[in-house]
Amino acid sequence: MASVANQFSATQAAREIAAGRLTSETLVRACLARIAERESTVQAWAFLDPELAIEQARACDRGPRRGVLHGVPVGVKDVIDTADMPTAYNSAVYAGHRPRADAACIAAARRAGAVILGKTETTEFANNHPARTRNPHNLSHTPGGSSSGSAAAVADQMVPFAFGTQTGGSTIRPAAFCGVVGYKPTFNTINRAGLKIVAESLDTIGTHARTVEDAALLACATSGRPMPDFARNKAKPRVGLYRTPHWDKTDEPTRNLLANVADKLRVAGWTVVDADLPPQAVAIYDANSTIMQFEEAFSLGYEYDNHRELLSEDLRSRIERGRGTSRDLYERAIDVVLEVGAMFIDAFRTVDVLLTPSAPGEAPFGLTSTGNSLFNKNWTTLGLPCVTVPAGIGQKALPLGVQFVGPYRGDSTVLLAADAAWKTISR
Amino acid sequence: MASVANQFSATQAAREIAAGRLTSETLVRACLARIAERESTVQAWAFLDPELAIEQARACDRGPRRGVLHGVPVGVKDVIDTADMPTAYNSAVYAGHRPRADAACIAAARRAGAVILGKTETTEFANNHPARTRNPHNLSHTPGGSSSGSAAAVADQMVPFAFGTQTGGSTIRPAAFCGVVGYKPTFNTINRAGLKIVAESLDTIGTHARTVEDAALLACATSGRPMPDFARNKAKPRVGLYRTPHWDKTDEPTRNLLANVADKLRVAGWTVVDADLPPQAVAIYDANSTIMQFEEAFSLGYEYDNHRELLSEDLRSRIERGRGTSRDLYERAIDVVLEVGAMFIDAFRTVDVLLTPSAPGEAPFGLTSTGNSLFNKNWTTLGLPCVTVPAGIGQKALPLGVQFVGPYRGDSTVLLAADAAWKTISR
Repeated sequence: MASVANQFSATQAAREIAAGRLTSETLVRACLARIAERESTVQAWAFLDPELAIEQARACDRGPRRGVLHGVPVGVKDVIDTADMPTAYNSAVYAGHRPRADAACIAAARRAGAVILGKTETTEFANNHPARTRNPHNLSHTPGGSSSGSAAAVADQMVPFAFGTQTGGSTIRPAAFCGVVGYKPTFNTINRAGLKIVAESLDTIGTHARTVEDAALLACATSGRPMPDFARNKAKPRVGLYRTPHWDKTDEPTRNLLANVADKLRVAGWTVVDADLPPQAVAIYDANSTIMQFEEAFSLGYEYDNHRELLSEDLRSRIERGRGTSRDLYERAIDVVLEVGAMFIDAFRTVDVLLTPSAPGEAPFGLTSTGNSLFNKNWTTLGLPCVTVPAGIGQKALPLGVQFVGPYRGDSTVLLAADAAWKTISR
Repeated sequence: MASVANQFSATQAAREIAAGRLTSETLVRACLARIAERESTVQAWAFLDPELAIEQARACDRGPRRGVLHGVPVGVKDVIDTADMPTAYNSAVYAGHRPRADAACIAAARRAGAVILGKTETTEFANNHPARTRNPHNLSHTPGGSSSGSAAAVADQMVPFAFGTQTGGSTIRPAAFCGVVGYKPTFNTINRAGLKIVAESLDTIGTHARTVEDAALLACATSGRPMPDFARNKAKPRVGLYRTPHWDKTDEPTRNLLANVADKLRVAGWTVVDADLPPQAVAIYDANSTIMQFEEAFSLGYEYDNHRELLSEDLRSRIERGRGTSRDLYERAIDVVLEVGAMFIDAFRTVDVLLTPSAPGEAPFGLTSTGNSLFNKNWTTLGLPCVTVPAGIGQKALPLGVQFVGPYRGDSTVLLAADAAWKTISR
């Protein structure tokens, strides 16, 4: 069992540990062995101390059961503070930085029994400048970003699940590119204290896993959100196929994939209709950019003013654009969010979830760009829950995902829908 | 001029410095002299390094003009990160803690030319457990909290203005108790990156000053919000006298004060009418408590789990209550905020600002409690802009404030209203 424990889902591993059939130490050692074998290739980890991880696992094995994550290792995007590991946001400004406290979600994960395995690579301050991480499916391609290491580590069976974050498309896009599940909860689900803030109105902590149930488990265990009942999942929701105003930016395999998924669901008895929104809904995309730039120019103000030479050219110019953005424009962008949000409230009157691309296509070639967030940043800005599941492959044999989006706080609905749909289309 | 420069308003000081009639060093030395004289009595400062302050002042005097705060010293509540000064949240857990970066508002203040004079005392993690600070008007009385040191330092002419924060009533109440102006902007005005988060949905950075214009200046200079035109302030807004559902908790001088202020404004030609809201609006008070406890149980999770013995009994029990609060109850509290918020949108259709008590009465005797936030936490939760101005004295000759509240983003309206009203009632 030791040799394959790293392939277990978190749910399965937690069950085995609870039943006394697996120790946390065995599981963690299996993950560490996988990392030892693969890390020089994938480069998913910003910090890893095997002894510290094993020490936590042994404490779980010795101690009383703490909670639903007991003994299960989790990867943590390196923009989330950990008191016992450095946290450097992939920036030379923070080389060797050791936070004084765990972030709220880390403390919550530990209370539930999790082993914090290590810190996963992020783009610079969860912005655009890429991490060194490679896509485990093809090392010449990006894993996506900004939660590059979390998605790649989970995809490569180095850890069953991990925390990511999303301000534009940073959880869903890398999940789709790496062929894993990504879950961005409703805004204000996982507490953000101890997260390096980029854009207060957008930053959302999410999860990567290899099953929808695992992605839900990590988020629910650390937010108090009730866990959906996956064991008895009979969801057959009404689905709105939403092509978005940027359908022409998708590649052909992605367009075919969406059509095929819709067909398979219809064949299985699901209701799938076209979802159309007023053309004004297109304003949400610019609103995301305006809000992000304005807020980021403040939140990274110290770094820009004191360590400009250590920032990437891309980040410097983003902050400069933010400083050139008026508060009036920013507040109008927030108004747009409310207006477009109301359009989506209407859209969800006739369907339970939306089905939409996770990304324009498969992971782009090269490591200089993490890809396009055009199919994510609208949902982040609206605060709606999103789940991507692997659903096919593209022209270069890389994974393609499809994304389900739910209404405000409809996390259970969208998680169960994604889970049921994935099982239906995989048959 | 040196001997009185600490009594200048920030606006006046900035003008004198810009005109070359005052140096920042002279101003800062005057503030430091006042602190040296009074600090052992008032105890407003958590950290003060006179040399570091003077060094910043000299850099301002040498260098080019940086912005509207050029050379003017500001006090900073010790829950806001500073890279060059320790930041300890009045908790032994963080003794000697030195953040790696300035908070967003500190970086913005420095960009505008401010001298960061020092860190002001806060209650433990901006919660209830009191700071050692005393009310400068009567040392046996609390200055209020949680921004105790900011309000007391400004009141005692140690610094012209200061940053505070408000999650319940932590900016407005100490301002009223200390006889200064307090301004809690519309939620999401001053960026919170680098603030020690207590409750994400409530925490608001505000300002203390001795004039409304100064309170506005610090907030506008650090948020990009346009500065209202105080020089040509001819505001005569329609005022709704709002007694709140807790009018019976006010003392007689406070009730008389509100009536007198309303009368004086009417005599001066203002329209003052009674503002009544549906009785359901009372639900906002419990909503604040529920939201604060639920969020705080997560945000201070590390501190509770790892350093419980260093927390006050009061904070421990708050966190325990938060852990006993379900996410369902929390989300219902957020729904209440939206419902009651809609009632206030209606209320602002017929009046421009509300006039309401700043606190139930004057500062209570003793230092064991910082007073009651019953007249503040509703506004914090609704995210509406509030300004308190000194307006009278209570039975023990301590200051009483009156509070003006504006609609969402109506910061200019409420600032100009408070400024005009204060001048009108002071005639």
